[in-house]
Amino acid sequence: MKISVLTMFPELFPDFLREPVIARARGLGKAEISIVDIKAFAGGSFRRIDDDTYGGGAGMVMRALPILRALESVKEMGANCHTIYLTPSGVPYTQKKARELSSLPGLVLLCGHYEGIDARVLSHVDEEISIGDYVLTGGELPAKVVLDSVIRLLPGVLREESTREESFENGLLEYPQYTKPADLNGDRIPEVLLSGDHEKIRLWRLRASLKLTLRHRPDLLENRVFTEEERKLLREIQEEMPGGD
Amino acid sequence: MKISVLTMFPELFPDFLREPVIARARGLGKAEISIVDIKAFAGGSFRRIDDDTYGGGAGMVMRALPILRALESVKEMGANCHTIYLTPSGVPYTQKKARELSSLPGLVLLCGHYEGIDARVLSHVDEEISIGDYVLTGGELPAKVVLDSVIRLLPGVLREESTREESFENGLLEYPQYTKPADLNGDRIPEVLLSGDHEKIRLWRLRASLKLTLRHRPDLLENRVFTEEERKLLREIQEEMPGGD
Repeated sequence: MKISVLTMFPELFPDFLREPVIARARGLGKAEISIVDIKAFAGGSFRRIDDDTYGGGAGMVMRALPILRALESVKEMGANCHTIYLTPSGVPYTQKKARELSSLPGLVLLCGHYEGIDARVLSHVDEEISIGDYVLTGGELPAKVVLDSVIRLLPGVLREESTREESFENGLLEYPQYTKPADLNGDRIPEVLLSGDHEKIRLWRLRASLKLTLRHRPDLLENRVFTEEERKLLREIQEEMPGGD
Repeated sequence: MKISVLTMFPELFPDFLREPVIARARGLGKAEISIVDIKAFAGGSFRRIDDDTYGGGAGMVMRALPILRALESVKEMGANCHTIYLTPSGVPYTQKKARELSSLPGLVLLCGHYEGIDARVLSHVDEEISIGDYVLTGGELPAKVVLDSVIRLLPGVLREESTREESFENGLLEYPQYTKPADLNGDRIPEVLLSGDHEKIRLWRLRASLKLTLRHRPDLLENRVFTEEERKLLREIQEEMPGGD
């Protein structure tokens, strides 16, 4: 996958490129990442990248022209350049979207800035994506979030089993995990995990997943289609809960 | 604010600490950030940080003991240490939560790893937070997301006007912004923004906010209390939309 990141702060990316999974994907030739400095496309002696907001208001707005020139230069280099603008005003990012993006041959990620970019750029991007309902200083962290979530799904980067039972893949949160020692100063792991009974362990884990999802993310259960087994477990969990509902 | 980040990958943080707003907050003494290497608390000659999952399954699980020792060492140094574990199984992070956290004297952020951590650690943390419905390689990017969103809200870090009209602050997405030139190769900014009529501009922006929220985030409108003015604008927008609903 050919990836370009357009940013005003290219100096914020070296650590990310060294991150173990990202470095591995690059080493294997699965991901080729270029960091493009929008400032280099500002032109003129002042290289002015932002200016006042039309209509008044606090703060500056990133100018459209340097961004459009940077986008053009990147698109000239690759045939397929699905372009994403990272902004809190975008459509929420999900694991499903990460899977979708991981099947594309190329991605262009445009990092915004909290004070805003000239909205005329938006007709030149394919998607506006938000990584969550909060505001960050710029689009650099969101671009890294999208890249990390996509690159780890590229075939051959992680072992496939590692990504199959994770949170969201089956519409539930992941069950709790434990490792040695079985007894941690009196805090023992659930006995069933030592039983060697695979069916019992599977049921315990499914039950734990349902319970955690009900506690932290009841919204995920709202539109989910349950198996008969899940429905039975869910009834048991709800009967146990204080208040009884 | 005193902040500690507990991670297996301290080498992924220098760029973040150089990020302009974070560097400014540190320079002003508003945020003091220590990056704590969990590996240093593993002990023994192998310093083993992870091990097999009890009950079977792909991948390794981070051991509880090094994490608990690291947590203890950090808590010994500060009186108030609100501890957050970053995990996709957590409660969704929001701008409201960012505002809450920004009023605390201290924060401890524990970065997990995609293969999981021993669940017995969870009784030692105050909150489990998820930055979104997707899976990342580890908790390092989520920790940076939480820190960036919180630190920019600390008094004196950004000008207060800059954070007041942003997305989510009033339950809507932010309106589009524009800067020079007014005519970009025939792509002109909305005329009203050149009118100098502040009331008209305010109405145009409110309308644009409502329209964008309706298109990208209809869910945000579901439980929102609208003013009479907003209700009127919303009706107009819905009448204009193709399909008429």
